[in-house]
Amino acid sequence: MTASMQELAAQLPEGVLVTDEATTEAYRFDSASSCPAGRPLGVVRPTTTEQVQAVLRWATRHRVPVVPQGARTGLSGAANAVDGALLLSLVRMDRILAVDEVDQVAVVQPGVVNADLSRAVADVGLFYPPDPSSWEMSTIGGNLATNAGGLCCVKYGVTADFVRGLEVVLADGEVVRTGRRTAKGVAGYDLTRLVVGSEGTLGVITEATLALRPAPEPALTMAAVFDRTTDAMTAVTRIMASGLRPSLMEFLDRASLRAIQAYRDMGLPVDAEAMLITQSDRGPLAASDVAAMGAICAEFGAAEVAVAEDAAESAMLLQARRLVGPAVEELGVTLVDDVAVPRARLVDLLLGMEKITADTGVLVVCPGHIGDGNMHPTVVFERGNEGAAARAQEAFDAIMRLALDLGGTITGEHGVGVLKRAWLREELGETSYGLQRQIKEVFDPLGILNPGKVL
Amino acid sequence: MTASMQELAAQLPEGVLVTDEATTEAYRFDSASSCPAGRPLGVVRPTTTEQVQAVLRWATRHRVPVVPQGARTGLSGAANAVDGALLLSLVRMDRILAVDEVDQVAVVQPGVVNADLSRAVADVGLFYPPDPSSWEMSTIGGNLATNAGGLCCVKYGVTADFVRGLEVVLADGEVVRTGRRTAKGVAGYDLTRLVVGSEGTLGVITEATLALRPAPEPALTMAAVFDRTTDAMTAVTRIMASGLRPSLMEFLDRASLRAIQAYRDMGLPVDAEAMLITQSDRGPLAASDVAAMGAICAEFGAAEVAVAEDAAESAMLLQARRLVGPAVEELGVTLVDDVAVPRARLVDLLLGMEKITADTGVLVVCPGHIGDGNMHPTVVFERGNEGAAARAQEAFDAIMRLALDLGGTITGEHGVGVLKRAWLREELGETSYGLQRQIKEVFDPLGILNPGKVL
Ligand SMILES: Cc1cc2nc3c(=O)[nH]c(=O)nc-3n(C[C@H](O)[C@H](O)[C@H](O)COP(=O)(O)OP(=O)(O)OC[C@H]3O[C@@H](n4cnc5c(N)ncnc54)[C@H](O)[C@@H]3O)c2cc1C
Ligand SMILES: Cc1cc2nc3c(=O)[nH]c(=O)nc-3n(C[C@H](O)[C@H](O)[C@H](O)COP(=O)(O)OP(=O)(O)OC[C@H]3O[C@@H](n4cnc5c(N)ncnc54)[C@H](O)[C@@H]3O)c2cc1C
Repeated sequence: MTASMQELAAQLPEGVLVTDEATTEAYRFDSASSCPAGRPLGVVRPTTTEQVQAVLRWATRHRVPVVPQGARTGLSGAANAVDGALLLSLVRMDRILAVDEVDQVAVVQPGVVNADLSRAVADVGLFYPPDPSSWEMSTIGGNLATNAGGLCCVKYGVTADFVRGLEVVLADGEVVRTGRRTAKGVAGYDLTRLVVGSEGTLGVITEATLALRPAPEPALTMAAVFDRTTDAMTAVTRIMASGLRPSLMEFLDRASLRAIQAYRDMGLPVDAEAMLITQSDRGPLAASDVAAMGAICAEFGAAEVAVAEDAAESAMLLQARRLVGPAVEELGVTLVDDVAVPRARLVDLLLGMEKITADTGVLVVCPGHIGDGNMHPTVVFERGNEGAAARAQEAFDAIMRLALDLGGTITGEHGVGVLKRAWLREELGETSYGLQRQIKEVFDPLGILNPGKVL
Repeated sequence: MTASMQELAAQLPEGVLVTDEATTEAYRFDSASSCPAGRPLGVVRPTTTEQVQAVLRWATRHRVPVVPQGARTGLSGAANAVDGALLLSLVRMDRILAVDEVDQVAVVQPGVVNADLSRAVADVGLFYPPDPSSWEMSTIGGNLATNAGGLCCVKYGVTADFVRGLEVVLADGEVVRTGRRTAKGVAGYDLTRLVVGSEGTLGVITEATLALRPAPEPALTMAAVFDRTTDAMTAVTRIMASGLRPSLMEFLDRASLRAIQAYRDMGLPVDAEAMLITQSDRGPLAASDVAAMGAICAEFGAAEVAVAEDAAESAMLLQARRLVGPAVEELGVTLVDDVAVPRARLVDLLLGMEKITADTGVLVVCPGHIGDGNMHPTVVFERGNEGAAARAQEAFDAIMRLALDLGGTITGEHGVGVLKRAWLREELGETSYGLQRQIKEVFDPLGILNPGKVL
């Protein structure tokens, strides 16, 4: 260990800082399969805010980059190591500090796993809606830092919509409390929302006050199979314009259906062009809701419409949707895109992607949170094949360009990280980009917090 | 006109800049009855973003302060003139540019009156929830700049929860687009939410993309009358912890009931200590919802529980609630407070206020959005009586101190403006305040945008 690392170790309880090769290596990457990572100095796994402060004071003194990390399920390389950085893993700060039924808030440390919080609040009849598909692994800190989405956003909104206040350790080790515990509050600028989605570049989240809701009724599920993707898109726009409020609305294209079916036999219709899965959780109204959604699908050309008869059947359909990630991983190296477009432009997105697929000759598998216009076109290519990798990158970029041209965004929920850093300026424009850089400098004048990410 | 004012006039269409004494005087104040206002140079009422840009370029060149204004219904002096400033009224930028049923968004100019937007979207079966009591007068630009609340926040959230993106003219006249039109998006920092609630100190909002929802069913209303305020508070916490989701939950204390009844005979129970008004808009479930809320009120001591039999009766009850503002104005000069506390601390807030009233001998009238813990204790005093004014200020300050001590905020929805500027630092703490000042400098390095407000 260098003298400066010894200085750090001396300030932390035994075992909080580790520098052995194996551990350090294990923490270098998040779950984006093709983003570069540097060589870190070591990993620090604090258990208290004070320890996080000590780390950042030391990092400021020695100008050492710090990369905050949750469960490293991120899909943009945002938690990847950079050269000479200290990896600051928050996974041991994993306590649920309070669940308050009257104010319907939870106070948690950042390392709490999403599913653990969801289960804890469900025990008292409450509901924490944000549900990224990674919910069994990803942390609340990571969810906040990426403003994670999920399956139920189409009705309930994203992570940011459920944050009241944060405790944040700044680059210099100072602690700041943002926001509040109350339902409403407008005192000063909204620093909470500024930190949410900032991917570890503005500060380290060490505590969060989250808004909860009363638990909804169990949802009913409808699935519709289409021979033509354009019909499925029409059905989506009609359902959304009908006044119905699906609590989930997911899409699987033919390539997704085939990948999942190859991964696990679930009896999926592999010759269909598209499948829509929707839910309603309006209790006594759910049955008529899903029937109405099914009727719209049938009207606009669905070959088959099925309403899950019970919770087990519903769970099976969702299970298929959730398996698309691992199923696609089996096919090769993946570049997971995450574009979002206005719903009215979904048809143009799908048609445009067909053209990109034809032009580049790559395989694109396209599941998505279609009710939000947020799709995950995933470009798959053979490991070690450089030509294929180049064509994949070309297709990946063409999809982002297409989304921007359609009035959309390069990232609906996964974030910018290193994966899309080159594209951010394109989306934001110079003026916005310039403001954001200056805000970064306000929070982190030395540029030690997660450098090389986002901006 | 000075040479510099002539230079400005030459860049704007005839009639956009006015400097006559009568008009200028008419625009000096917002609706906060006891906040100071300076002497402005004149009023400019642009009709296009380009004109706003011309104004701010000119202001930057000549270092002239600019005060953005909507309908001047604000209650914190935030839109009040400052000496030597140009008043920039956005009321003529009042066009609804688009209402999109598939994406459920509206694109509007800032001068659109809230009620006009609400009615326009209702015509196509959609719903713009934010509903400040000033909705027939206040503008979307003002609602955004203050992050206005309203009656339905308890279920639907505040103005900020319905903003997707903004067009903002910066202090130097540059235009920046923040956010997006899509339902989700995480590219870069959330500048939209930074500008929302910034009370005209970071930029001028010239366009907004707002999220809409399908129209809810007409609400049913329940009113409960209590002999003891503490019982009413218990009922509130029980209703909120019960899993019921009122779409409105308002409180009137005895002084409110008396003020309204004196203003207009509505048959209100002037001897009761408190009245709760709640609603449910869950269509076929609404009747059982309000019955359940009524049962909780009865269980915790309500002397009387009444469910409105029809829309007219519901409207009457809400009308009473909406009249409290003008009714209290009749009693004297008002200092309208706007504290919010965690719901579990509402009893302590009410008991604390009784003590403050007793100690200072002032009249405090206290209506509130109680479901959100957001109360409007209004200190009333006699015009021209200096001793009374001093005691009123003392009570007003004591109420804010109390709210902070209870883990609450000095302002739930009205904003800081000039009224609470001295208190902001107290609530935020030095570190947060320091960051916010630096953010202000990023957006407005010369300090020309609404100086002397908020920070
Ligand atoms: C199978 C699978 C399914 C997924 N499904 C979804 C989905 O449906 N929706 C979705 O949005 N995402 C999804 N993701 C992506 C990922 O799970 C989310 O981005 C998640 O929020 C990351 O959380 P994490 O704890 O793993 O954070 P990490 O990946 O460790 O970190 C993510 C970012 O947050 C920062 N960070 C982490 N903790 C903190 C902290 N305490 N303070 C400051 N910064 C911090 C890191 O620096 C990094 O920039 C999925 C990923 C996988 C592998
Ligand atoms: C009877 C009555 C009832 C009320 N009820 C409520 C209520 O229930 N909830 C609530 O939250 N408030 C309420 N208010 C307060 C007030 O109506 C709100 O604050 C409202 O949002 C102000 O809108 P406005 O158009 O009048 O803005 P103004 O008062 O003109 O301005 C308010 C602030 O916004 C800034 N601003 C205005 N337009 C722009 C723009 N385009 N760009 C940048 N900055 C701008 C101004 O500089 C100022 O700082 C009430 C007021 C009255 C008189």
